[in-house]
Amino acid sequence: MTSDPASLPELRLLKGTTDQPPQRQIRRQAVIATIREVFETFGFDPLETPILAHFDQLALKYGVDDPILEEIFHVTDRGRRELGLRYDLTVPFCRFVGMALRGQFSLPFKRYEIGKVFRDGPIREGRLREFTQCDADIVGSADPAADAECLAMADLVFQRLGLETEIELNNRKILWGILEEAGLDGAKRDAATTAVDKWDKIGVEGVRKELADLGLSDSAIERIFAHLATGARGEEGLKELEDTDLRGNALFRTGLAEQRAILEAAKGFGLSAPIRLVPRLARGLGIYTGTIFEFFCRDRTLIDSSIGSGGRYDRIVGEFLHPGEPERQGDYPCVGVSFGIEPLTVALDKLRGAAAGALTVTEALIVPMGARDEALKLAGWLRRLGVRTDIDLSGGRLRKSLKRANAMGIPFLLMLGEEELAAGEVSLRDMTSGEQTRFPLTPDGADQIAARCQAARNTRGV
Amino acid sequence: MTSDPASLPELRLLKGTTDQPPQRQIRRQAVIATIREVFETFGFDPLETPILAHFDQLALKYGVDDPILEEIFHVTDRGRRELGLRYDLTVPFCRFVGMALRGQFSLPFKRYEIGKVFRDGPIREGRLREFTQCDADIVGSADPAADAECLAMADLVFQRLGLETEIELNNRKILWGILEEAGLDGAKRDAATTAVDKWDKIGVEGVRKELADLGLSDSAIERIFAHLATGARGEEGLKELEDTDLRGNALFRTGLAEQRAILEAAKGFGLSAPIRLVPRLARGLGIYTGTIFEFFCRDRTLIDSSIGSGGRYDRIVGEFLHPGEPERQGDYPCVGVSFGIEPLTVALDKLRGAAAGALTVTEALIVPMGARDEALKLAGWLRRLGVRTDIDLSGGRLRKSLKRANAMGIPFLLMLGEEELAAGEVSLRDMTSGEQTRFPLTPDGADQIAARCQAARNTRGV
Repeated sequence: MTSDPASLPELRLLKGTTDQPPQRQIRRQAVIATIREVFETFGFDPLETPILAHFDQLALKYGVDDPILEEIFHVTDRGRRELGLRYDLTVPFCRFVGMALRGQFSLPFKRYEIGKVFRDGPIREGRLREFTQCDADIVGSADPAADAECLAMADLVFQRLGLETEIELNNRKILWGILEEAGLDGAKRDAATTAVDKWDKIGVEGVRKELADLGLSDSAIERIFAHLATGARGEEGLKELEDTDLRGNALFRTGLAEQRAILEAAKGFGLSAPIRLVPRLARGLGIYTGTIFEFFCRDRTLIDSSIGSGGRYDRIVGEFLHPGEPERQGDYPCVGVSFGIEPLTVALDKLRGAAAGALTVTEALIVPMGARDEALKLAGWLRRLGVRTDIDLSGGRLRKSLKRANAMGIPFLLMLGEEELAAGEVSLRDMTSGEQTRFPLTPDGADQIAARCQAARNTRGV
Repeated sequence: MTSDPASLPELRLLKGTTDQPPQRQIRRQAVIATIREVFETFGFDPLETPILAHFDQLALKYGVDDPILEEIFHVTDRGRRELGLRYDLTVPFCRFVGMALRGQFSLPFKRYEIGKVFRDGPIREGRLREFTQCDADIVGSADPAADAECLAMADLVFQRLGLETEIELNNRKILWGILEEAGLDGAKRDAATTAVDKWDKIGVEGVRKELADLGLSDSAIERIFAHLATGARGEEGLKELEDTDLRGNALFRTGLAEQRAILEAAKGFGLSAPIRLVPRLARGLGIYTGTIFEFFCRDRTLIDSSIGSGGRYDRIVGEFLHPGEPERQGDYPCVGVSFGIEPLTVALDKLRGAAAGALTVTEALIVPMGARDEALKLAGWLRRLGVRTDIDLSGGRLRKSLKRANAMGIPFLLMLGEEELAAGEVSLRDMTSGEQTRFPLTPDGADQIAARCQAARNTRGV
């Protein structure tokens, strides 16, 4: 079973993938736990879908030559089936709902999923091809309060994580109404949406050129820009839009009404982040049909890109279930929000300092100093009480254990020296203060030590 | 961006993969949370490694024609690299340690990982090709106390889950010593180990035939069977082995001494599961070099196969780091334990009843009954207090909400009828007792409701 030494390849990671060693993983898990807790607080239930799927199931949402298909990793099995790795959590969610609706399944359904997704994008520094996504979605409610619920949920996630954010909100119906009124050919709506989405990347002139290429005249583009160039506005921006001559456009009017209802509901929920209305917010993905939003750190030096985003996509489940019947495709309205763990940890590392996190989960390191049996017994008691306990079995000297506890940031050392043993006790050393206390080497003593560790845990945090 | 309706494939899952809908996923997450907590209680730190890897990195451990290589899914990226999906968590762990040891990295290192693994086995009912594994391993300690720590940890996991178990323990050195003394050619040791591993599958006569095919005489096989056929024994079995004529064999003697030390350390930790010594326990994997163990439910009607297993593998990291130098390959001894979530949930479903779990995480369902703004405000308060709250925005009647709460097992309904609103109150209906209580519709009232939900949560469990 041993390998041929001559042919053993060098140890290496695939580019675009990464290990998360304990220092980073402890933080990541704390972030994920917070997100999970808030999702559940909003009544979203956990769903897990497979990573591996038939390729055609992953491609359901897209036309045959959509560039996103190139980003799906191809997998083959021994049956030579064409498989792929999921590149988001939305398609598997819609596939699940579509299949569930064939049986007994009642809507609305609120689910969350936290899991790995894979995108075979071009390899470049800092861009991951395997990463963790956290999504929460509601299917079966067209009520703008559902959109507001997603905003309120993301808002609470960021509050809990200690990140001050602001929300950029738009509604594609507003954007599409503006484009329609400027005379854009309806068939070119998606292309124009993609062009507007690049506003911050290619600038006003870049967008102007792309819109001109789609056949819009200079004056039409000016009419569009008059509404889009204003940038972010508060609620008064909505009022102004409501007063423009565009209000004759049905799509535009619907978009504004939805926007207004979301703002009202958000007030009800009591958001901490300010909402800014950004008529030119477009978002790349083709799926959105109404509300779209992004969360940004108020302090953009933490991270410049958005740290959470989402929107309403009312047609995908219907397209899956009733491919030939456009009139039934709006029957399963969806809205959701998504976070990537990686951008969040970038922002949090910058906020708290990358080195500030714990290097280990261990709270108490037992140094047997020869008293091995007693050390194992003490470890057994403490662990059953939930104290994160390790034993230094290296057989080295106290000095070495002290050094290790210091280097790893372990808060307590438990020492079983001759003097302690003679007295039937154990010494607890607080690594922060240097203070030492003796406890009886009994289950009762273990209880007292556990209480001490618990108290420190409450003030420490991770 | 819409798909061509004519070509839209039917919605379906890949065989060997499965969705985990909320009812199952809520339980799975509770199991995973328990495992994670116990792992950390034993001072194991979280590590995350990628699912996607260069194919050669996944094959590191095996010869070029090892059948396990057939079980690795092949992946290609746009750069036409040969990639694969990890099929266990051990190889990525050893690869991580090998890479880390080139830099500043101190041993012993205790890590756990909980994540998806993929095995392209033959498709058959109930066999998953994508599943969740929970592994905890120690690298850098040859101390039998480390082996005992793995046993104690698994023991506490099962205790916390409410499963009564028993441990089957062996040491490959004992088995190999027996084979060696019977005159087995050293080059055929792995093949003989594999044959013995099939004991329960192919029976005594099957094993006899396979050993004969390896060139062992009838009398040699009888000598082997004299030790292997005894079945499981208590500690007295060890004493008997220590008294046999095999004690002249160095490997055998080392195996017994390690076994003895593990039993002593296990007593120190205080295990609840009885340990049974099974000299014919072999375990299929080629990596093990000493201790091997499996945990079984004492009530085998819950599940017949093992629900946790592990062992010592002292040479893999060394083989990765020093492929040409066998004398250095024992420098990084490892021992670990592994659980599959799927077998665990099979056992737990049987123990608790598959239908007994919660269908939703939601604790309180608000029925606005027209008072939409108040409902949103109340939801905002409760959620900030951590109450898992949903709002019934369907606009339907109370009767429908009651039915939904009943069907989903939501413990509390919060009603905002005209009478309540007039009094500035909200009615809480305990869905179990039917009892209704009024609370003020204020942040203080929300505090009282949260306390009520919290109390119920403590008695309910998931």
